[in-house]
Amino acid sequence: MTEEKPKRVALIASQGTLDGAYPPLIIATTAVAMDMEVAIFFTFYGLNIIHKKKMHTLKVSPVGNPAMPMPIPSIVSIIPGMTPMATGMMKSWMSKAGTASIPDLVEACVEFGVRMIACQMTLDVLGIKREELIDECEVGGAATFLEYAAEADISLFM
Amino acid sequence: MTEEKPKRVALIASQGTLDGAYPPLIIATTAVAMDMEVAIFFTFYGLNIIHKKKMHTLKVSPVGNPAMPMPIPSIVSIIPGMTPMATGMMKSWMSKAGTASIPDLVEACVEFGVRMIACQMTLDVLGIKREELIDECEVGGAATFLEYAAEADISLFM
Amino acid sequence: MTEEKPKRVALIASQGTLDGAYPPLIIATTAVAMDMEVAIFFTFYGLNIIHKKKMHTLKVSPVGNPAMPMPIPSIVSIIPGMTPMATGMMKSWMSKAGTASIPDLVEACVEFGVRMIACQMTLDVLGIKREELIDECEVGGAATFLEYAAEADISLFM
Repeated sequence: MTEEKPKRVALIASQGTLDGAYPPLIIATTAVAMDMEVAIFFTFYGLNIIHKKKMHTLKVSPVGNPAMPMPIPSIVSIIPGMTPMATGMMKSWMSKAGTASIPDLVEACVEFGVRMIACQMTLDVLGIKREELIDECEVGGAATFLEYAAEADISLFM
Repeated sequence: MTEEKPKRVALIASQGTLDGAYPPLIIATTAVAMDMEVAIFFTFYGLNIIHKKKMHTLKVSPVGNPAMPMPIPSIVSIIPGMTPMATGMMKSWMSKAGTASIPDLVEACVEFGVRMIACQMTLDVLGIKREELIDECEVGGAATFLEYAAEADISLFM
Repeated sequence: MTEEKPKRVALIASQGTLDGAYPPLIIATTAVAMDMEVAIFFTFYGLNIIHKKKMHTLKVSPVGNPAMPMPIPSIVSIIPGMTPMATGMMKSWMSKAGTASIPDLVEACVEFGVRMIACQMTLDVLGIKREELIDECEVGGAATFLEYAAEADISLFM
């Protein structure tokens, strides 16, 4: 073990909502900026984050989420149009705070050399084609993630 | 520290939905297949996964989940029958992709020697009896998990 | 590396529901009781946990949560009054099982020396003021968490 070895971060991105997509991308971009080595394993709904089309339309839903900063009673939250409204509110907050969009953060991850791994089983289960995902990702399984994470300093399922 | 020591994986399974149950079981079975040592701490809703009856009827809910691959408007998703439909869709996808059922994966974990720990506090809080859970699990607390995880190479809260 | 160095636990608390707030606080208080060193990074909805007012009114929602121990059909769960009912049920269960309330657990964390870090970006994004949070927390970014977690024995995103 050399002292020079960079710290390694292994992330699993499992959520496909707008609010669920930010944490792994922010941790990943911050970590590479700190000269750490990072891989993200995109699985289940998290595959949306590196889906060429879906990454642009991730949504935050107010339904079943009593922790939303502006609480919306459940009966109101299921009225059509509320999900777009909650999504719009969140995008506006993030943008006011100077936070990048999801596609911007994905692009930053790729540029900064974050290893992007799409879950093979999720592709099979959901019938998603490789070409629907960003070109820069590789495809791998849980074993690919575990091999990487076994040597990591920080592992997080997000 | 010997080089021969197997890698150790410490998981917390906290979700009791069908889609939430797969990740810890897939990571666990893959890790033992790679000769890693694994323990899963089943807590909160995650206790459903090792509940003799409930493990057979875990559900995926489309409500409040805008990341479902086939998006269902919230107003529609609360119509009775939609949760069974979403659950059926997911089971059918998993089965087509050759993925084992939850009870199969739990059985595999037991056979492969994954240490299965049921959260004592959750049993107390929810009034669940020990005999409602699979015979092969032990009962322990957060301290049991932390002792194990402190020596682990990978720890994940799922 | 000395053998005497205490084990270190790095947690991210990202959920602002009643059921989502318990796991990080229980892990943190158990870990310090075992002489481990602990930090919690409160981010996104998790910031509610250290919000002077909101920590007293965290809610559990039955909507979109088919894993609730007493399953409530979706159509019923959106009737106004069901979220308070589910929240009341949970508080009553926790109290019967002798489990502390959220404010009690936060106080215990502070007393036992858990490092409490509020996410700067979340404050900015949601327009929350520093003084709305408990006095004992510090404010930091993802980099603050990563620096701490890189030397931790257990890291969990909860």
